[in-house]
Amino acid sequence: MSRAWNFVAGPAGLPECVIQKAQEALWDVGPGAGILEISHRSAFFDRLMYDLDAQFRRIGGIPDDYDVLFLQGGATLQFCQIPAILTRPGDHIDCIHTGFWTRNAMRDAAFYTDVRYAYDGAASGFEHIPEDSEISYSENPRYVYYCANNSFMGTEWQRPPLTRYPLVADMSSNIYSRPIDVRAHSLIFASAQKNLGIAGVCVVIVKHEFLEACQPEPRASMFNYRRLVENRSMLNTPPTFALYVMKLMLDWIDGQGGLAALEVRNREKAAIVRSAIDDTGGFFRHVGEPQCRSLMNISFRTASREMDGLFVAEAENERMLGLRGHRETGGLRASVFNAFPVEGCRVLAEFIREFARVHG
Amino acid sequence: MSRAWNFVAGPAGLPECVIQKAQEALWDVGPGAGILEISHRSAFFDRLMYDLDAQFRRIGGIPDDYDVLFLQGGATLQFCQIPAILTRPGDHIDCIHTGFWTRNAMRDAAFYTDVRYAYDGAASGFEHIPEDSEISYSENPRYVYYCANNSFMGTEWQRPPLTRYPLVADMSSNIYSRPIDVRAHSLIFASAQKNLGIAGVCVVIVKHEFLEACQPEPRASMFNYRRLVENRSMLNTPPTFALYVMKLMLDWIDGQGGLAALEVRNREKAAIVRSAIDDTGGFFRHVGEPQCRSLMNISFRTASREMDGLFVAEAENERMLGLRGHRETGGLRASVFNAFPVEGCRVLAEFIREFARVHG
Repeated sequence: MSRAWNFVAGPAGLPECVIQKAQEALWDVGPGAGILEISHRSAFFDRLMYDLDAQFRRIGGIPDDYDVLFLQGGATLQFCQIPAILTRPGDHIDCIHTGFWTRNAMRDAAFYTDVRYAYDGAASGFEHIPEDSEISYSENPRYVYYCANNSFMGTEWQRPPLTRYPLVADMSSNIYSRPIDVRAHSLIFASAQKNLGIAGVCVVIVKHEFLEACQPEPRASMFNYRRLVENRSMLNTPPTFALYVMKLMLDWIDGQGGLAALEVRNREKAAIVRSAIDDTGGFFRHVGEPQCRSLMNISFRTASREMDGLFVAEAENERMLGLRGHRETGGLRASVFNAFPVEGCRVLAEFIREFARVHG
Repeated sequence: MSRAWNFVAGPAGLPECVIQKAQEALWDVGPGAGILEISHRSAFFDRLMYDLDAQFRRIGGIPDDYDVLFLQGGATLQFCQIPAILTRPGDHIDCIHTGFWTRNAMRDAAFYTDVRYAYDGAASGFEHIPEDSEISYSENPRYVYYCANNSFMGTEWQRPPLTRYPLVADMSSNIYSRPIDVRAHSLIFASAQKNLGIAGVCVVIVKHEFLEACQPEPRASMFNYRRLVENRSMLNTPPTFALYVMKLMLDWIDGQGGLAALEVRNREKAAIVRSAIDDTGGFFRHVGEPQCRSLMNISFRTASREMDGLFVAEAENERMLGLRGHRETGGLRASVFNAFPVEGCRVLAEFIREFARVHG
């Protein structure tokens, strides 16, 4: 039986060639053992980590004065670790609040520092991403926090906010879906299971100078990013397979032509689905204002919860999975991360048009 | 080419049937997507987590008044999280210090609480595990900490220390290699990549009452074990594939006849290698006193570093991998975790005898 069209919000679908290579690697990756059974202290894995780091930096255009860490615990552990590591007593931080993920991040940050809001998107129902003129920074926040893509509402920043303060971004749901302006940020973090592989590894890209300035005192090992940098993310046993799959994904990204080519492809994919929604004459409506709609998470809905449910059920019959919106927001959501194929967007677009024709 | 005999200390070898099932699951695990691509919020994964929890509890004989968590970050994150969560200002803890891993755990614990030593094995070169009479507990430690199997030196506790204080055990390198006296402990933790699958997930078994007594105040999400319990370890995206492989390993353990049967098999495996070492008339010597030698990590050495190196090199030619001792201890080490086959122990035993005959 063929694989389904997988629109889930993550862990997301992978390119079939990545899965096939991973299958082979499970049995024997070279030295007589499978990738799951390789010591992180082996020559094989040491080389893998050097190559992963170099390729990750090249693809993302990460300057040499930034450190790259590959950690466990997902983005949610970063919600704790970043304020724990980067703030000091008396500090405060500014948050640009655009939805569920900034809310959760700030709930955790509040255990470590004073959180202020430079913008609150609640009034717009989080369908809006602010212009720079709408953001009011406080005086000398330790850093400014934002979420580059809001996977719940399906809104995405088209470029980072302009600020003279250090900028920290959660890019979990859009990293490497398009070129990144790394220099605009002091820290970027992203879990891998949407655009860079599987659950279990989280990337942290941090400006070396920012890390050094914020972390003068000794800390417990897993909160000591400087030591983690020195140990190339292998202070303890890393999530070896998740790192291997990330390497396969980077190979695939290279094969696609890099981030600029991926952006073209991702824009095409989103446009195929968005224009089908437009074509239904209001039967389906987009969630999110036009200028801030996400390329990764296409949020839309019908006029009723019942019709949304019918859409999800009928789509599943056509082997389109994961189109139900998040339990907090309701509605419909098609997540079309890097690996999701253009062909699947065409199938969904056709289905949207047909569904509106039948039920409209 | 056939797979090698994999004596690495972890991530460790897996049963071939587990690898084969994982290979199939990568392509399609049922709903039209592979196991790497399944949402942790799907019905499939929800069922997997219920089954994993129930099977894990049944196999280990874990009483109902203990909570089980499946977390990320490895045992090393627990070195921070356990003292951060379970101690309060003014508390202290007691450590029974038996080597590298208790040292590292206490280095991290010292950032959160006052650490005292109820026993210090440094004087014995860590070749000794103390009798209860050798341990001097302080007054009212919040908990007593020990490491059940010291993978570096190859020493193992034959039963838990007797104490009236709450007992916390690192079982990363011997969990589920034999039946566990869970009731003797208030908390047990173990990373999975030796006996329970692959790197990326760490099990925490904690007495509910102990957790409640120690954690009255609100905490950031990843430090709130109560909330993690309520969310069945899925507060954020869990390491889905590592959990799936753990389920396959539990199926394999059931197929072997459970922990009592595994203990018989693990004793047989260790005895095969140990008796070969005995047969060399002193050419090889065991590390660790006889009554505290590990079933999991067989530490031994020749009289010289050069001869140890030659042994490792010649063993690799015979496709026996990972026999070099840890860089801190030197010597030789054969790790024979749950999945390591009896046949491989026989091959190593024969090689040990032959090597001593040729070079002795």
